[in-house]
Amino acid sequence: MAGEKNDDGLVLLGFWVSPFAQRCRIALAEKGLPYKYVEEDLFGGKSDLLLRSNPVHKKIPVLLHHGKPVNESLVILQYLDDAFPETPSLLPADPHARAHARFWADYIDKKVTDCGSRLWKLKGEPHRQARAEMIEILRTLEAELGEKKFFGGEHGFGFVDAAFAPSTAWFLTYERYGEFSVAEVAPRLAACAARCGERESVAESIYSPEKVYDFIGELRKKLGIQ
Amino acid sequence: MAGEKNDDGLVLLGFWVSPFAQRCRIALAEKGLPYKYVEEDLFGGKSDLLLRSNPVHKKIPVLLHHGKPVNESLVILQYLDDAFPETPSLLPADPHARAHARFWADYIDKKVTDCGSRLWKLKGEPHRQARAEMIEILRTLEAELGEKKFFGGEHGFGFVDAAFAPSTAWFLTYERYGEFSVAEVAPRLAACAARCGERESVAESIYSPEKVYDFIGELRKKLGIQ
Repeated sequence: MAGEKNDDGLVLLGFWVSPFAQRCRIALAEKGLPYKYVEEDLFGGKSDLLLRSNPVHKKIPVLLHHGKPVNESLVILQYLDDAFPETPSLLPADPHARAHARFWADYIDKKVTDCGSRLWKLKGEPHRQARAEMIEILRTLEAELGEKKFFGGEHGFGFVDAAFAPSTAWFLTYERYGEFSVAEVAPRLAACAARCGERESVAESIYSPEKVYDFIGELRKKLGIQ
Repeated sequence: MAGEKNDDGLVLLGFWVSPFAQRCRIALAEKGLPYKYVEEDLFGGKSDLLLRSNPVHKKIPVLLHHGKPVNESLVILQYLDDAFPETPSLLPADPHARAHARFWADYIDKKVTDCGSRLWKLKGEPHRQARAEMIEILRTLEAELGEKKFFGGEHGFGFVDAAFAPSTAWFLTYERYGEFSVAEVAPRLAACAARCGERESVAESIYSPEKVYDFIGELRKKLGIQ
């Protein structure tokens, strides 16, 4: 959708491998909203537009809608529901189901990427702790998923799935640095990850697990991690 | 409101000094919703109801609505808007204003209590870092507040204010352990804090700054912090 006619004046500032930016791309694709994608050079220097649009955190993703910035990935997803009520809703309609979805998206937001980065950054006991924590996170998500095809359940692929799907491209990296198998630890979650990968909105927004793994290998070299 | 007739079947599990539980009390009061308040004994042992209602985080606050749990304070606030649309809304109606409010409530959620606890827990360089960070947080909030009476601006006391107001009872504790003055660092924020304290919904939900300070003094003794 990133190249199509963009009457809604939507611009997304992102970074290709960021799961937070990918959430927004997935949500925009699910809603069929065309937008202009701008890749930020996070290593070479952030753009003036990014620094001006998100002066508090100075981070991607930023969604600009007719020039007005919206920051933080889960805030952006809810904004898209609020601002484009004619498009398929990410959040369900029922108040309790909405709260349930917000709870689990928040859980993924706080837990997965933070714990995952400790897997490829740390050694020794802190690494062992991160490994145990990631296995616990995956099992917790597996229990929440249950027998459902997607986290959205009857609603279908939704808010929690958009929050979760980008992490599936990082599973290989987590497995190699954590020395575990997602398919063994949480087989239903692994099957859900595969289903996410087959979905058009996800496939066009994320990169191959091998490319993510190579990126982290290069990043470790840059950071001097042996 | 906690003692009134409770036809909506609302029960809040909280802990008196928790700013996260207090947010929910403030929101319930702003909406005029009667509820039963249940104080959890976080030091003596969490109740089976709490552990059953929030098995993932095992934390207060939990809102039970006709027995169905909703967890995480900001999720609870949005649930109250969604489930009781006939009551005064905490979030504004405009999509961009809603996103703006969600961004700032999230900022307060992630920054204030975490940084504040480092002020009374740490010594030396980590303490100096926490002090500098808290001053930066207060100035950032001051800049966002601007000339407005409350963060909600034209909407009035709202989502961000309910998220912020409980922290104002902790300012004295932060000032004493951080050795700074909120009134000097962020005078407009200090004036907003005073306005929050005069509001009935806040006054009936939070405790005096001196009581919070004494609680932290006792907690430091329990934790063996000199």
